[in-house]
Amino acid sequence: MGLARHMVNARSTGTSEQSKDDSQSSSDYETGLSDDEQLDVRIWLRLLTCANLIERRVRKNLRDKFDTTLPRFDVLAQVDRSPNGQPMRELSRRMMVTNGNITPLVDRLVEDKLIKRDPSPEDRRVQHIRLTAGGKRALDEMIPAHVSWVNNLIANLDRDNASQLYALLGELKASIQTAERDED
Amino acid sequence: MGLARHMVNARSTGTSEQSKDDSQSSSDYETGLSDDEQLDVRIWLRLLTCANLIERRVRKNLRDKFDTTLPRFDVLAQVDRSPNGQPMRELSRRMMVTNGNITPLVDRLVEDKLIKRDPSPEDRRVQHIRLTAGGKRALDEMIPAHVSWVNNLIANLDRDNASQLYALLGELKASIQTAERDED
Repeated sequence: MGLARHMVNARSTGTSEQSKDDSQSSSDYETGLSDDEQLDVRIWLRLLTCANLIERRVRKNLRDKFDTTLPRFDVLAQVDRSPNGQPMRELSRRMMVTNGNITPLVDRLVEDKLIKRDPSPEDRRVQHIRLTAGGKRALDEMIPAHVSWVNNLIANLDRDNASQLYALLGELKASIQTAERDED
Repeated sequence: MGLARHMVNARSTGTSEQSKDDSQSSSDYETGLSDDEQLDVRIWLRLLTCANLIERRVRKNLRDKFDTTLPRFDVLAQVDRSPNGQPMRELSRRMMVTNGNITPLVDRLVEDKLIKRDPSPEDRRVQHIRLTAGGKRALDEMIPAHVSWVNNLIANLDRDNASQLYALLGELKASIQTAERDED
């Protein structure tokens, strides 16, 4: 109840932000937040803004420089991180989407001969996904480019701050996982 | 060139991570990263993992508790942050998507009488989007719930760490924006 009231009050004081709306500066998820907005909500919206800014740049560069999409690159990069291949359910977990969402993507990459399905070495009834030689070659060009784009975007953060941000995002991730476990 | 080599080496040492692949623990974008992976790439994947974890929970709760979707909620919450309304181009900037992507969403919310299009007070030729009374009532229920979900996920982060994370995400955002300006 306290929270509800807080939010309603915060909303009605939003007019001081109004002048920003018409400026030329770029807007994002944080625009128009009032000063007394909850810290946690601010963290969430700032996190989302940063993730979207990086993602937008990576998508654009993948399109412009490699004529490919982010979901295709993500599948290849994830498959690459398991040299012995991985089953679909593991791939979809890593990509944080459902099996159904990546099946058409995987089918297409198989057609394009960038990945292949092979029986698992441990259990031949399970299909593992792994890179083809062509997929490896494609990634050998894309991965260093991807690293350099991300470096470029984060380069203006000094290295102490970068290490600290990484550690704090680790704390955040642990906090979310604890909350999820308590919920389920 | 140094980066390319680094990445190729990092990839070939991935086997030590393999045992994790078959465990029951939940996987995400960080799974299978080798220890010598670039800090910036680690930051990016951890950021993406946190954003996806929070987003997944918020989507689920919006569906279960309000029978609505995240994009619909996002539009309403953004419109709400400009009490005097805002033009479509500002709304799409804030939501970090193109105009074309939110037009069908906005049309649908207008049909559902949650938002309306009115002439701007400054320029009657420009349509501003604002909440209807019904949209305000819907948000009055959803916003405090959204705040409490986010609080719940971030609650296990102590308040000093939370403040510091918020500040460092601000540095990250500034770094990305500087890089983008240099690029364009």
